[in-house]
Amino acid sequence: MTRTDCVGQPVAAIDTPALVVDLDAMARNIERMAAWAREHGLRLRPHAKTHKSAWIAAQQIAAGAVGVCVQKTSEAEALVDGGIGDVFITNEVIDATKLARVAALARRCTLALAVDSKLGIERLAAALQAAGADIAVFVEIDVGHGRCGTAPPQAGVLARQVVAAGLRFAGLQAYHGRAQHMRSGAERGAAIAHAAACVRQALAALASAGLRCPLVSGAGTGSFVLETASGLWGELQAGSYVLMDRDYADIAPGEGAPRFEHALFVKSQVVSRAEDRAVVDAGHKSHAIDSGLPGVWGREDLEFANGGDEHGLLRLRDSSAELPALGDAVWLVPGHCDPTVNLHNTLVGVRGGLVHGRVERLITVDARGCLS
Amino acid sequence: MTRTDCVGQPVAAIDTPALVVDLDAMARNIERMAAWAREHGLRLRPHAKTHKSAWIAAQQIAAGAVGVCVQKTSEAEALVDGGIGDVFITNEVIDATKLARVAALARRCTLALAVDSKLGIERLAAALQAAGADIAVFVEIDVGHGRCGTAPPQAGVLARQVVAAGLRFAGLQAYHGRAQHMRSGAERGAAIAHAAACVRQALAALASAGLRCPLVSGAGTGSFVLETASGLWGELQAGSYVLMDRDYADIAPGEGAPRFEHALFVKSQVVSRAEDRAVVDAGHKSHAIDSGLPGVWGREDLEFANGGDEHGLLRLRDSSAELPALGDAVWLVPGHCDPTVNLHNTLVGVRGGLVHGRVERLITVDARGCLS
Repeated sequence: MTRTDCVGQPVAAIDTPALVVDLDAMARNIERMAAWAREHGLRLRPHAKTHKSAWIAAQQIAAGAVGVCVQKTSEAEALVDGGIGDVFITNEVIDATKLARVAALARRCTLALAVDSKLGIERLAAALQAAGADIAVFVEIDVGHGRCGTAPPQAGVLARQVVAAGLRFAGLQAYHGRAQHMRSGAERGAAIAHAAACVRQALAALASAGLRCPLVSGAGTGSFVLETASGLWGELQAGSYVLMDRDYADIAPGEGAPRFEHALFVKSQVVSRAEDRAVVDAGHKSHAIDSGLPGVWGREDLEFANGGDEHGLLRLRDSSAELPALGDAVWLVPGHCDPTVNLHNTLVGVRGGLVHGRVERLITVDARGCLS
Repeated sequence: MTRTDCVGQPVAAIDTPALVVDLDAMARNIERMAAWAREHGLRLRPHAKTHKSAWIAAQQIAAGAVGVCVQKTSEAEALVDGGIGDVFITNEVIDATKLARVAALARRCTLALAVDSKLGIERLAAALQAAGADIAVFVEIDVGHGRCGTAPPQAGVLARQVVAAGLRFAGLQAYHGRAQHMRSGAERGAAIAHAAACVRQALAALASAGLRCPLVSGAGTGSFVLETASGLWGELQAGSYVLMDRDYADIAPGEGAPRFEHALFVKSQVVSRAEDRAVVDAGHKSHAIDSGLPGVWGREDLEFANGGDEHGLLRLRDSSAELPALGDAVWLVPGHCDPTVNLHNTLVGVRGGLVHGRVERLITVDARGCLS
């Protein structure tokens, strides 16, 4: 049974290893985050780097999202090709040839881009002028991650450069990536309090430069309750909530946070057995390991150990239990959803649960491998 | 400049991030390993899970390899579709539907498969009989890795089952994956001495069962000098030598080993700068990190730190040096070649070096994402 002919078939027919989406759980996740944004009067622009799929982006937009975020120009191109009309590239583009692609894309959709340098602003302005295109420009500030983004007090200078270059200043990009994965609520609270202080500094710098800030955009699945509470952010960029992963599930949720369910699984199969181990056909070519190894769904008594690119090793934590047999299916919960999805061309969408459900649709990972 | 229109262009025109192959270095690597096998009277069957490309496999076969290895049925299908005629799936397949695909493929090429269970043998026999196909069957023994493979003393029993099922017993699959990455020659020496003892045990078990062993196949880039010296292996499966990675380069080569050159690089670009760091557009969506972070080619003074899925952080080890500027190209040497190649649809083949060279061809990663 290859991927293409499993639609309509029971879950048992899915060839392994496969990346499977529980469509019912995903739909509940989409609705819960949409409700959160609605109830708090915030725009929701989910990060599509999680799923890389125009079909899932369309479900999010149908539930109320204003559009989606991506990290790369080629991801934006893939989603616009797939029918998405409003995309924010929450990242810097510095290459002139790539900026020409950004400008060409801006003629086909509502597009936004982050900047954090004079050179980037000047090249973007040249590319847009050459193409006769318009774009929303967000000044990215470093709110504590220590990656891209200008120092908050410089936000006014950069925003002035945006305006001076004839571009449309749309607001601040303020996302704290590292904060998302901090284990304790206290740690995340401190990180987002720092991020909020950075936003306030940047807003003051903008005011000093005589500029109004139309929007502050940011926040992720691990922290959006905190950005919401601050009252500073007007747009939430959380992405992982839609599929969830083992790492996010390990994080203590903020008070009053909606509950998100695991909707992403690797279906694997035992291909070799020894007395002390079962070997499944899913290794780190099936699931990303940057946030740790996958968990075993519904089998707390099994420990997953790294078996290399193509294998996983299952051992018993509890010697009174039994290892799965040759040919048995084993369901894994990936450690990190975004790079796991990026390993697969197709998501297998299941309706009715992992036990008795059926394959409803194959979801193309449109932006898989879109690195540039 | 997108991928498709960079052929014939100078290296500077390659869009980033890109996975670049130094075709001159790769050709030298291919010839050095072919010469080693020739001079030692061994068959060479390089593992194509390294490059996943029919074009590179064809270069290896043209230089004297008897065929290639792969790990998955779908990888074999992709390479046979790409014109490769002799493939060994060095792994167990247990699913009946997938075994029907194996049998169908065996009608289109010379195919081999590993087995380590009675169930696997019986299902393979049924699939081959249904398809009227023939296959070379290798009994895999566990030579110390602790993953797939039967205990060596059981090799005779399994080989008897192969023969009893009407299948063609072709020899032993004996590969020690973990040994490849052991840092010291002494450690690797001990591991392969253990593997050799396991092979001898299995050969004795086969003899007791009244069976001749036509071939022992195995060995990798980190250990093939040792398997060669043992006189037990008749076929080498080394794969990584063709592209090399940072991890293999860190390994002390065995005495008399040919020197293999880095032929695989990620070309990245600085997209953001701060006083203390340069941020490049290559993260762990561009390079696998299971064997550690990439090195920076030609810039020993720069340290690469993980910046997440899409970014890398460069900092100075030596404060007298200078960080690369916004827009500069930075060349990375991936930690582990196989899963890095699996992230990319295309390898950009460069002739004439990374500085003054030109793009000669785009190499399709035919078996990218072939997990099943």
